[in-house]
Amino acid sequence: MVAEDLELMVRAHVDFVSVGIFSWASLEPEPGRFETAWLDAVLDDLHSRGVAVDLAVPVASPPPWLGVQHPDSLPQTRSGTRLWWGSRNQFDPSSAAYREAARRITRMLVERYADHPAVVMWHVGNEYGQLSHGEEAAQAFRDWLRERYGDIDAVNRAWGTSVWSLGMRSFEDVIPPREAPYLLNPALELDFARFCSDQLLECYLELAGIIRGAAPEALVTTNFMGFFPLVDYGAWSEHVDVLADDHYTDPADPRTRLTASLTHSYLRTLAGGDPWVLMEQAAGAVNWREHNVPKTHAQNRLDSWRAHAHGADVISYFQFRQAPSGPEVFHSALVPHAGPETARFQAVTELGGELTASPLAGEELGSSRVFFVHDWDSWRAAVGAGRVSRAVDPIAQNEVFYAPFFHAGERVDIGPSSALLAEAASEGASLKDRCDVIVLASQFLLRGELVAVLEEFAREGGQLVIGPHSGIVDQHVRAHLGGTGGGLLELAGVFREEPWPLAAALPIRNGAGEQGRVEEFVEVLRSTTAQPLWSVSEGPLQGRPVATHRALGRGAIWYLGGLLEDGILAEVIGAAAAAAGIGLDPLPAQVELIRRGGATVVLNHGSVPARLSLHGRMIDVPGEDLVILPS
Amino acid sequence: MVAEDLELMVRAHVDFVSVGIFSWASLEPEPGRFETAWLDAVLDDLHSRGVAVDLAVPVASPPPWLGVQHPDSLPQTRSGTRLWWGSRNQFDPSSAAYREAARRITRMLVERYADHPAVVMWHVGNEYGQLSHGEEAAQAFRDWLRERYGDIDAVNRAWGTSVWSLGMRSFEDVIPPREAPYLLNPALELDFARFCSDQLLECYLELAGIIRGAAPEALVTTNFMGFFPLVDYGAWSEHVDVLADDHYTDPADPRTRLTASLTHSYLRTLAGGDPWVLMEQAAGAVNWREHNVPKTHAQNRLDSWRAHAHGADVISYFQFRQAPSGPEVFHSALVPHAGPETARFQAVTELGGELTASPLAGEELGSSRVFFVHDWDSWRAAVGAGRVSRAVDPIAQNEVFYAPFFHAGERVDIGPSSALLAEAASEGASLKDRCDVIVLASQFLLRGELVAVLEEFAREGGQLVIGPHSGIVDQHVRAHLGGTGGGLLELAGVFREEPWPLAAALPIRNGAGEQGRVEEFVEVLRSTTAQPLWSVSEGPLQGRPVATHRALGRGAIWYLGGLLEDGILAEVIGAAAAAAGIGLDPLPAQVELIRRGGATVVLNHGSVPARLSLHGRMIDVPGEDLVILPS
Amino acid sequence: MVAEDLELMVRAHVDFVSVGIFSWASLEPEPGRFETAWLDAVLDDLHSRGVAVDLAVPVASPPPWLGVQHPDSLPQTRSGTRLWWGSRNQFDPSSAAYREAARRITRMLVERYADHPAVVMWHVGNEYGQLSHGEEAAQAFRDWLRERYGDIDAVNRAWGTSVWSLGMRSFEDVIPPREAPYLLNPALELDFARFCSDQLLECYLELAGIIRGAAPEALVTTNFMGFFPLVDYGAWSEHVDVLADDHYTDPADPRTRLTASLTHSYLRTLAGGDPWVLMEQAAGAVNWREHNVPKTHAQNRLDSWRAHAHGADVISYFQFRQAPSGPEVFHSALVPHAGPETARFQAVTELGGELTASPLAGEELGSSRVFFVHDWDSWRAAVGAGRVSRAVDPIAQNEVFYAPFFHAGERVDIGPSSALLAEAASEGASLKDRCDVIVLASQFLLRGELVAVLEEFAREGGQLVIGPHSGIVDQHVRAHLGGTGGGLLELAGVFREEPWPLAAALPIRNGAGEQGRVEEFVEVLRSTTAQPLWSVSEGPLQGRPVATHRALGRGAIWYLGGLLEDGILAEVIGAAAAAAGIGLDPLPAQVELIRRGGATVVLNHGSVPARLSLHGRMIDVPGEDLVILPS
Repeated sequence: MVAEDLELMVRAHVDFVSVGIFSWASLEPEPGRFETAWLDAVLDDLHSRGVAVDLAVPVASPPPWLGVQHPDSLPQTRSGTRLWWGSRNQFDPSSAAYREAARRITRMLVERYADHPAVVMWHVGNEYGQLSHGEEAAQAFRDWLRERYGDIDAVNRAWGTSVWSLGMRSFEDVIPPREAPYLLNPALELDFARFCSDQLLECYLELAGIIRGAAPEALVTTNFMGFFPLVDYGAWSEHVDVLADDHYTDPADPRTRLTASLTHSYLRTLAGGDPWVLMEQAAGAVNWREHNVPKTHAQNRLDSWRAHAHGADVISYFQFRQAPSGPEVFHSALVPHAGPETARFQAVTELGGELTASPLAGEELGSSRVFFVHDWDSWRAAVGAGRVSRAVDPIAQNEVFYAPFFHAGERVDIGPSSALLAEAASEGASLKDRCDVIVLASQFLLRGELVAVLEEFAREGGQLVIGPHSGIVDQHVRAHLGGTGGGLLELAGVFREEPWPLAAALPIRNGAGEQGRVEEFVEVLRSTTAQPLWSVSEGPLQGRPVATHRALGRGAIWYLGGLLEDGILAEVIGAAAAAAGIGLDPLPAQVELIRRGGATVVLNHGSVPARLSLHGRMIDVPGEDLVILPS
Repeated sequence: MVAEDLELMVRAHVDFVSVGIFSWASLEPEPGRFETAWLDAVLDDLHSRGVAVDLAVPVASPPPWLGVQHPDSLPQTRSGTRLWWGSRNQFDPSSAAYREAARRITRMLVERYADHPAVVMWHVGNEYGQLSHGEEAAQAFRDWLRERYGDIDAVNRAWGTSVWSLGMRSFEDVIPPREAPYLLNPALELDFARFCSDQLLECYLELAGIIRGAAPEALVTTNFMGFFPLVDYGAWSEHVDVLADDHYTDPADPRTRLTASLTHSYLRTLAGGDPWVLMEQAAGAVNWREHNVPKTHAQNRLDSWRAHAHGADVISYFQFRQAPSGPEVFHSALVPHAGPETARFQAVTELGGELTASPLAGEELGSSRVFFVHDWDSWRAAVGAGRVSRAVDPIAQNEVFYAPFFHAGERVDIGPSSALLAEAASEGASLKDRCDVIVLASQFLLRGELVAVLEEFAREGGQLVIGPHSGIVDQHVRAHLGGTGGGLLELAGVFREEPWPLAAALPIRNGAGEQGRVEEFVEVLRSTTAQPLWSVSEGPLQGRPVATHRALGRGAIWYLGGLLEDGILAEVIGAAAAAAGIGLDPLPAQVELIRRGGATVVLNHGSVPARLSLHGRMIDVPGEDLVILPS
Repeated sequence: MVAEDLELMVRAHVDFVSVGIFSWASLEPEPGRFETAWLDAVLDDLHSRGVAVDLAVPVASPPPWLGVQHPDSLPQTRSGTRLWWGSRNQFDPSSAAYREAARRITRMLVERYADHPAVVMWHVGNEYGQLSHGEEAAQAFRDWLRERYGDIDAVNRAWGTSVWSLGMRSFEDVIPPREAPYLLNPALELDFARFCSDQLLECYLELAGIIRGAAPEALVTTNFMGFFPLVDYGAWSEHVDVLADDHYTDPADPRTRLTASLTHSYLRTLAGGDPWVLMEQAAGAVNWREHNVPKTHAQNRLDSWRAHAHGADVISYFQFRQAPSGPEVFHSALVPHAGPETARFQAVTELGGELTASPLAGEELGSSRVFFVHDWDSWRAAVGAGRVSRAVDPIAQNEVFYAPFFHAGERVDIGPSSALLAEAASEGASLKDRCDVIVLASQFLLRGELVAVLEEFAREGGQLVIGPHSGIVDQHVRAHLGGTGGGLLELAGVFREEPWPLAAALPIRNGAGEQGRVEEFVEVLRSTTAQPLWSVSEGPLQGRPVATHRALGRGAIWYLGGLLEDGILAEVIGAAAAAAGIGLDPLPAQVELIRRGGATVVLNHGSVPARLSLHGRMIDVPGEDLVILPS
């Protein structure tokens, strides 16, 4: 390994690096012939300077020889186009040839490095998310269905194949979603998405099993990508020993801070109280946008502290030294092409020192009293062609509902509803013990068993907040019939007649005569047991409630049946939080506040100093700087 | 059949339903094995409650087994991508395997249900418009050409294959238009479009023949789609026993009413005085736009009355009950997911009662004294790459020229020029007997024989209105040479030097010194025998006429050689109509007026009441309501 | 040949025509069977009226039979889609079958027409630029690499295949860039682009060799397309006996004049002092835009004179008579569809007379004292996915840096850096003898050997102007490390830390306190030996220099490390030119001035007269007209 690099790592306080993620062709230049001397040296060198290694099982990018020998291992798009080597990720997760080759390289690495003192973690693959729609994928999909449904008639019923003459005689009639003349069956699409996530998990588990077999104490992980559409991290998280995430903020997008905060909350929630790893971020610019605005040094610093405050106790970057060539030659690094005599390297060196001395590392993460439900398959079911409107997007809704919490510095948990169901099912436990507010910002796909749990939560004093277009379909994208939203709207005390995308904003009014607007989307509701908070005040929907409140037991259900303008949404959510004893007072503009254990981190993204009152005393935060108040 | 559905149909005054359109896989779950008990029951149930049935021959969506057994029956795009099952329409109309399977299911249905008392109509396929570019399509295209041209040299001559070295040795060198490095020969594209329409007609006729063979009295039809680019309904209309159309207005588009009005006029014209069927419309929202704004109940009511006033004596919907699953789960219906206890179902129930009692049903449709020419192949030839400008679009031009009539409540006929030629050719008849105004809004493709007929029409007192970019090519997309527009411009009294798309609007002026603008497109004209009405007043085209008038015999020809601003266009068209004794006085804004026989239907789309004078008396129409003045 | 056409050619002063460019199928209707009588007649007829012929070797568009007999001769896109006949250009340049057929038709033509008195030039193919990514292309690409790199390890090293596991075992692992899951290796992309250009050159040379073998005195050429991305004309130019270019200005784009001027400068430079041929331009409109605004007659006249003043002594058009059919039926011509009795034909007839009597034809072309470097492979390397920003585009930068010269009527040379290297390497010569100003507007890819040459140029008194994002990578898209820009920025006296695309414009200031802006893109610089001219005045980059000047020997280096607003850029370039004794005084708006030898051509594109002072006297130029001041 280059001595200068080691030296610079030490200068930059780097004590943990991922090694070999795309090294398959270097380690196995020909099938079955391994070259490891270079890796031996790298690991020894790193170890000699106290740098711990996250050693990769480099299966994300097979060498060209795999495609040459096994063209069928190359993935196929929906239109049947083969994707070739020359980039990365060119494998069909169902390919037997790929799987065998992946096992072989994994076994070699484990045998050789399981006991290397530098290796503290194993990194399987990279950003799992590969897809294929070819024949091997079809076969594996059939097996997946067979296991879940038993016989083809059960699939036909679940998918509603009587519509459009899609009835299948046997599993052999099943194909992945492929290019077709018009809209595809959404249940097929959803099950295929689930299959793809499961198939990739199988790829991961197969290799993790090899590692764990040889090194039972090894920490095994792979890097997630936040709210990534192709993989269900809610299901994956239990299979990694440490959660790791890649997150790239966009300095050109002012919303990027809120997105990062919610994404980190997701990781924190999935990690269940344990610290996680920010595996990749950029020190400056990325290279995959059309115009790659870099982070300033201050932005990079605040980004890193945000992640750390949210529980990332490893703050890592892609990449240490900027690649001198290849497809990512223009992606930033700790050491830029220009070398260490740069403001960039100087800044990360200082930041490295700062983070090494962080007062937060010891702080517990715990959990929040506010829980956002984010079900991956609900998201997947909600988007695509043939839906009601692009304006009701689950990810956007999560962010919109999160905004009042974010702007008040109030952290939330966000995770799958299965976590709530498990909590509720555990002996002697009550969901109300877990949290005080549950938010379903856009629960498009609703499993029936959730309703009873939520009802009990409310009766016991919980505040349940439900966003528009919730309770629309079941797990097979079959509509919940009868206006009750699968029971969820009945619980909210409203009857929903139909969704109503808007050509123009509609005026609304509350009981106090205040006015506002609902934008782009509203539902046609009538109250059954709920109290209207806001109602449409003009036009054919005049008098229809848009936001409602139903007191139930010691708690309440708040229903928002449309895209309310920000201020009104914040007001309703604020009222729900207040009912749970949580005040959502907005912080000064540009200020972000994150609590970790007893400590508080205040980030000031503005260029001028900010002042705020905290625990009764005034805190001043310089521009583009932060203040940490320890426990 | 579900008893509740029957009950609700009766409540909603539904007395006619289409059954089984996508039921192929249900009727024939395996090749040659039929299951019909469920259909027996449905037909019996419907009949028991007096609901008449339009029984489908469900060939629009073959079951998956057809694609499994005959992969070549799957259609191929221009780029050779195969389109798979999982949606609908996945067949190559030239596939022998598909055609045989279609005949088999048709024969089964006819044998079983030809005499069922519920069945009053047969519905073959659905929205014909499927395409393929593979080898079977190529063979069929070769046969089609062989029949029309005799030998390959005739094709070479017609297509002008000496350009770009496209000369073919034999029919075996012919392929469909496929992905190519640059612009395709437009004559190939046009003939392939004709072939596709004819090939689908052959599919239809083959099955209609089976039905008629077994049930000579049967009414056989298929559903059209208004101005649909892939099928020449002008040629199809004589082959259906009842014309049926699907029409989906877009509540987010204010132009949608005019479009609907012109489309219904097209159906009325093709139907030749007979009533037609509005086979599909949405009660609320569709699901295939990105943001599906629903119709209000008032809009649905006015839409239905518009169609009825234009001659649709069956007002039908897709769909009765909203599908609980599948690709169209979010398409609206008479009975929404929420069930019958909804404003939507209430409204359609009331509307059903209203329409059942319509005073219009007995009214004759007759024809208009204004005839718009719309030739499908002219439209097809005019659009695509390699043309003069996207700004001169035939469909848009039809609408622009129709606007002054629509806004005056003056109905027009619109149909193919072949109808005029037939009229003119019939013994002792004169085109002037048929109408007083003929409008060629954008007759890009002009057949020579039309000119003499139009000249005689004018000489006998007709007013002929011709829009820009007319008389450009012949039926093989060969330019009409010599500046005469194939004789059409010579008839108009102008010589056209060249088309002239504009980078910015040009000022124009008329004889009275009034000023205006021509936008996006103009032609370089000089008058030969015409009188200029408006001319360019500045720049390199200064003095060039843009609108002209030529008196001829007892009539006149009005030529508009550019995209005139709306007001001036309305003025010129108004003058032409006035010369034919037709006054085009604009109705109040938001008001639409349709005459049927002696009755008049006045629709007020605005939210406030409208008042207008009709036959000398004042009529008040409430907001979002209508008034019918019987004969 | 049609007698009327000959007559009209004479009327229009046409004395040179290209014949037969797309005539392959007409000349060889079946493989090996030739029909040449028609071509005999055309050549004889043209000769009889004194019209010289540029006879085409019609290999740009093979007849359909080639694709029928050899489907593999059809090109394949990156996604593997085959491109079919029905258009033109449907060949894989590496196809053995195509190459053999091309040789056969060439031999036939040469044998028959080499001595025909009408034939003064041979025109091989047309607008070379065809591509394929299939198996024959792969084989040829492997051979190309083998020849250049010797062994696969050298390719692996050059391409940096250790990134993303792209290491190849042998040349058999090489494939062209094809559809892939993510970014492709940029060195692969660049070498494939070079291969494609070389492969086409091989196609050309093979046929040119046949011609030259039979007719050693023959002039052989093919038509270039200005700054065309797929072919390296800098490398091709030595292989054509006369340079020929196709150039289509866009009347809807006000920037089109500057683009034309710079493109013509490129041709003039490549021609090395010899006149060149404007092989194609439009008299009016083209047909391949969506909205084809035609040239006015004045625009066509000024366009033609511009090209002539830049050294085009043949001013030719596509096409003489507008095609009556086929894909280019709507492309303009000298004789439009309407015929010769049109303003269009009248205007080109007058122009033909004017040009025939041109006083410029005798004037020498010489060269300019200003040299812009334009390296084709640098341009190719700079664009595409995975780069820093779309905002720094080499072609756009060339135009932006050229603008101050264009607006001052100061002509420049523009050509590859290899021309400068050759100049510098020739015995006893100095680059400073060649020119006084060298501009590298965007030298993304920098070969090391250029730096020393430029340094000597500056030391000897040259002014070197360097634009942003220069010296970024070497010839294999490997980053120049260490902040020196491969030595180029070190020469400029600055150290570059990193590129910095901007989300918003940044304020800058110069030493005199004047203010301005840098837009979209800036670099993070620090001066080492240079003097800052303008620096960032706010924000995190405050104080960083943006434009610098380094005096060196008798000359200087001017560095512009960002996209400066136009006025400031013009000021800095003006200062550099002034230092070389070249004044860049702006001409009146809409006026363009071109010198050729001692003569001066002044074009007034405005509609009102312009007045300017030239050599001490006042010149008046009427609107949309020109004045020529002879030597």
